Amino acid sequence: MIVLENTKQLQTAIKSISNFISEGNFRFNDKGIALRAIDPSQIVLVNYFAPKGIFKKFSVEPSLIGINIEDFDKIMRRVFSNDVLELSLEDSCLNIRFVGELDRTFKLSLIELNEEEASLPEVAFNAKITIKARILQETLKDASLFGSSIVLKIKDNVLTMEARGQQGTLKTLIKKECAAVDSKEEINNKYSLSFFENLIKEADPESDIKLELKNEAPMKISYKIADSEIQFYLAHMIL
Amino acid sequence: MIVLENTKQLQTAIKSISNFISEGNFRFNDKGIALRAIDPSQIVLVNYFAPKGIFKKFSVEPSLIGINIEDFDKIMRRVFSNDVLELSLEDSCLNIRFVGELDRTFKLSLIELNEEEASLPEVAFNAKITIKARILQETLKDASLFGSSIVLKIKDNVLTMEARGQQGTLKTLIKKECAAVDSKEEINNKYSLSFFENLIKEADPESDIKLELKNEAPMKISYKIADSEIQFYLAHMIL
Amino acid sequence: MIVLENTKQLQTAIKSISNFISEGNFRFNDKGIALRAIDPSQIVLVNYFAPKGIFKKFSVEPSLIGINIEDFDKIMRRVFSNDVLELSLEDSCLNIRFVGELDRTFKLSLIELNEEEASLPEVAFNAKITIKARILQETLKDASLFGSSIVLKIKDNVLTMEARGQQGTLKTLIKKECAAVDSKEEINNKYSLSFFENLIKEADPESDIKLELKNEAPMKISYKIADSEIQFYLAHMIL
Repeated sequence: MIVLENTKQLQTAIKSISNFISEGNFRFNDKGIALRAIDPSQIVLVNYFAPKGIFKKFSVEPSLIGINIEDFDKIMRRVFSNDVLELSLEDSCLNIRFVGELDRTFKLSLIELNEEEASLPEVAFNAKITIKARILQETLKDASLFGSSIVLKIKDNVLTMEARGQQGTLKTLIKKECAAVDSKEEINNKYSLSFFENLIKEADPESDIKLELKNEAPMKISYKIADSEIQFYLAHMIL
Repeated sequence: MIVLENTKQLQTAIKSISNFISEGNFRFNDKGIALRAIDPSQIVLVNYFAPKGIFKKFSVEPSLIGINIEDFDKIMRRVFSNDVLELSLEDSCLNIRFVGELDRTFKLSLIELNEEEASLPEVAFNAKITIKARILQETLKDASLFGSSIVLKIKDNVLTMEARGQQGTLKTLIKKECAAVDSKEEINNKYSLSFFENLIKEADPESDIKLELKNEAPMKISYKIADSEIQFYLAHMIL
Repeated sequence: MIVLENTKQLQTAIKSISNFISEGNFRFNDKGIALRAIDPSQIVLVNYFAPKGIFKKFSVEPSLIGINIEDFDKIMRRVFSNDVLELSLEDSCLNIRFVGELDRTFKLSLIELNEEEASLPEVAFNAKITIKARILQETLKDASLFGSSIVLKIKDNVLTMEARGQQGTLKTLIKKECAAVDSKEEINNKYSLSFFENLIKEADPESDIKLELKNEAPMKISYKIADSEIQFYLAHMIL
């Protein structure tokens, strides 16, 4: 049985994951709850971990359960702000109980999934950016006027983002006040715009997003959701 | 001629009715205005009564007029908050006049409808529930994640609502603080979820809704809209 | 190079124009920026002028450039409230630069357009109305319940607007407090409702709209957007 009082953080994480992954294996063990999965198009790897410490009560048998994440997301969106969440396993169901003004129990059928867990890409990143989520979100919106991809460039520790379409182009220069950039080499990488937008859309606009890059390698994107962290690896595109 | 100052209450009633009934007969007599009609699928009976007392001026010839309720609804939604509403009959039109900052007169063509008025079901209800509209609205939203129907159960004067779908189930236990339940027998009845949702969607979330039930009988649902009352009878489904 | 600090006024003008005109020629000269164009259906003529004085810096070579106005509109909508706008020409592009928290440069490809400029209709108007935008916007919304056209009538300097459809009619009497009417003859003119609605939809609800009319002639509609003025000529319909 798991009890969570600050339910919003789990809700946000599940929202974010369900943008890419419709089904996945949650791993419960004595450290916390983890999910690692690759989207069907193999462009995004999600690595989520909610440490035991964020839960009010956390007594679990180690287990791996397959869940329809889109359904889990729809249920989690129904939580009221003062509800306490209880998770428990029963037969072939995950019991999701919201206790507050009402006492609501959702039972979600478990599904059978391939047990193999995706391994994290081993990349020696050369550049690190810490950027306000709002700035990144707005820049990607700008880019979506023209293109379906975005190019991140770093030169002399200055970050620019560029998009190009038939009708025109966008070039955004990110001022130093808006992003801390630390790069050992010049970076020039292209990524899918829609995936990138989806990845960061649940991030609190006022929070920081960390980007780790290397030429011709996937980008690591990570941000905090309250006390848990979500990480994505986004494949690069051919320039 | 009928004059109404608190126009919002009539607006809300018409909104609510137009969710089910596209055409109906309004009955004007010395008691007030009444509408009783059955939706085309025969699942809902609406019984609305606006007593003479809510009107500032009420001098009518008894009459029965057929109206396109969807069109009437669209017009009523155009009322401004300080407008005074005047209703009058003229030839084959209902004159709907909004007098305020502007002086607007909408003429709605009357339509010929079968004169027979639906009779109210005669049910000796065994259970009565008074529940906050908001609680009921939220519970039906929860249920709509899974099913197209909802089951209301009462046992020992405790109300639970259940929905079931392929992906999972919901069971909501309504605490005694949220609903006053008075039942002479155990209740176990199933209703169409979409109809039930539509029936109560215009109810002020902070107002009370009264449900009257009996096994294998339609449920009576009633709530106040300012000083008038709207009643619905919702057919039960086979369990 | 053109520099504009109050970007909202240009944004609003472009929004308003892009409702009708997808491509147009902007004329830059030592007086300011002008656009005069006719919509493809030949029902609306737009005449927009932004005087040099509204710009912080205005040093231009006289030129005429063809622009996709829908794309220009999408870019202008991305401006942040404190951004300073810089416009400049470069090769076959219009550079649109937003400088503020970020430094964003959008390049919009120029397009080749017929150079002939529409000439303004020469109408000796007989009636002039000054009406609060909000009142006009609401009356057109009322009318759209029934019809696809609206009739403006002036008699004894009293303005009424009427719409008619299969289901009913609307007649709005505009009180003298809401519109200043000065007419030398009785007016009875019909216009396309959807065009009229689009023409005034970007007008600040609290601003004044000036209508100039003559029987069987197009209506001139004009309003201020900050310090620039936008004018439309809307063709009349056969009564």
